[in-house]
Amino acid sequence: MTNKLPSVELVIEVPFYDLDPMNVVWHGNYIKYFELVRCQLLDEIDYGYLKMKDSGYMWPIVDIQLKYINSASFGQILICTATLVEYENRIKIKYTINCKNTGQRLTKGYSIQVAVDMNTKELQLVSPSILHKKLKKFI
Amino acid sequence: MTNKLPSVELVIEVPFYDLDPMNVVWHGNYIKYFELVRCQLLDEIDYGYLKMKDSGYMWPIVDIQLKYINSASFGQILICTATLVEYENRIKIKYTINCKNTGQRLTKGYSIQVAVDMNTKELQLVSPSILHKKLKKFI
Amino acid sequence: MTNKLPSVELVIEVPFYDLDPMNVVWHGNYIKYFELVRCQLLDEIDYGYLKMKDSGYMWPIVDIQLKYINSASFGQILICTATLVEYENRIKIKYTINCKNTGQRLTKGYSIQVAVDMNTKELQLVSPSILHKKLKKFI
Amino acid sequence: MTNKLPSVELVIEVPFYDLDPMNVVWHGNYIKYFELVRCQLLDEIDYGYLKMKDSGYMWPIVDIQLKYINSASFGQILICTATLVEYENRIKIKYTINCKNTGQRLTKGYSIQVAVDMNTKELQLVSPSILHKKLKKFI
Repeated sequence: MTNKLPSVELVIEVPFYDLDPMNVVWHGNYIKYFELVRCQLLDEIDYGYLKMKDSGYMWPIVDIQLKYINSASFGQILICTATLVEYENRIKIKYTINCKNTGQRLTKGYSIQVAVDMNTKELQLVSPSILHKKLKKFI
Repeated sequence: MTNKLPSVELVIEVPFYDLDPMNVVWHGNYIKYFELVRCQLLDEIDYGYLKMKDSGYMWPIVDIQLKYINSASFGQILICTATLVEYENRIKIKYTINCKNTGQRLTKGYSIQVAVDMNTKELQLVSPSILHKKLKKFI
Repeated sequence: MTNKLPSVELVIEVPFYDLDPMNVVWHGNYIKYFELVRCQLLDEIDYGYLKMKDSGYMWPIVDIQLKYINSASFGQILICTATLVEYENRIKIKYTINCKNTGQRLTKGYSIQVAVDMNTKELQLVSPSILHKKLKKFI
Repeated sequence: MTNKLPSVELVIEVPFYDLDPMNVVWHGNYIKYFELVRCQLLDEIDYGYLKMKDSGYMWPIVDIQLKYINSASFGQILICTATLVEYENRIKIKYTINCKNTGQRLTKGYSIQVAVDMNTKELQLVSPSILHKKLKKFI
């Protein structure tokens, strides 16, 4: 038990195909970086995409926000973090993306996911018990 | 003079390559639909990407939010709208995406862009006069 | 009966998010344009993605080639064509992408798909009879 | 001097956003994996994208082919290789993508790039001397 919510860090090197005509990462591509580090966070709590399916729930994104502070360029090394900040009724994750070299903040944001029962297609107003069980060792 | 801020509508048919394993549009792809209809809105006020460059300003996205209400599937026809809601200090645009057939709301959101002088790289705290000139016929 | 294999044409306007730092469409994005016009061709013969699934076969791409002759830029209007050139043992489609304005050839290529039985996962060495039935009115 | 042309290997873990409704990597996404390992190969010979620009040449892709043998699924670990196979008049690179676990071949292909003088925009019928210089230590 760590008494704090899980958080992970992922290093990403900016690929050429994510660049736009201004020679920086196109703003829409950061949503992929958020997903990469979110997947790692969910793996950390042993509740990644495949485990979600096994548990009978999908967890679609219902809300996502991205704030852009500085741009990223080809080959730049980014430190992406994802931190679980809510779990009782929904999964809320906060993200930061910083330049590894300078420490400069490039992007931040959050995403919110809610559980949907895969059989009934019903949205769950509180998080199913499986999520609480997965988080027991952290909280 | 219309006394109201410009708004446009764009029809998009969901392509196969935007789908995810749940057989619905992957949440990150809506940011492309927002861009398509935003480009059309900026063309409507004669201040699209190329005109921005000619005017000496870039207008990077600094903040974007997407809310997902219902999912979209292969071949579904979407009505996307973009409406200018702020322009004095920055460009704020609101978006909606509805199913053409049922009228059901699928997604909504906003984006915020600020002007950056292409020579000095300085962020402009008020929108440059060129934007006001472009909007004269609407307001 | 037209005595010739089906062919379709699709108009695409180059979106901003497909551009790369050279201010032209990133070479990998043409594979999406191929898919858009291929889907239209398959709809033309009433054997699109959903009809394929209903027929009990998937038709994965097993071979694709793209040749780049000229680049495409933001807002350029492209005429994409897809023509069925083989169907007895596999689906082979040829593609061209031209500039609408100048008629200049930008890209060409082909794709090959083979039928896979969705139950047995077995690759079919000849095209299943459903494809021949769908093509009867053309050949 | 190694007397053989340079070759590199890159490990890629299949991300969720590259999957399609069949729960496998959408065929168009492999072109990104080819680019990732190609960039690493070009770095290996000290002639990556930025060095190309510094040398006064662009090297656009003029021909690319991908063959799909087996599919890849979420989280699968892929071993991608890129090997330089021609350089005198153009850069031709061969690619393979295998499953790390089983060794099974998933994809193979090649790409061809030609030099274009950035000032004159003229296509070079033989590779500029800078490429030969960069390759000296290998051949």
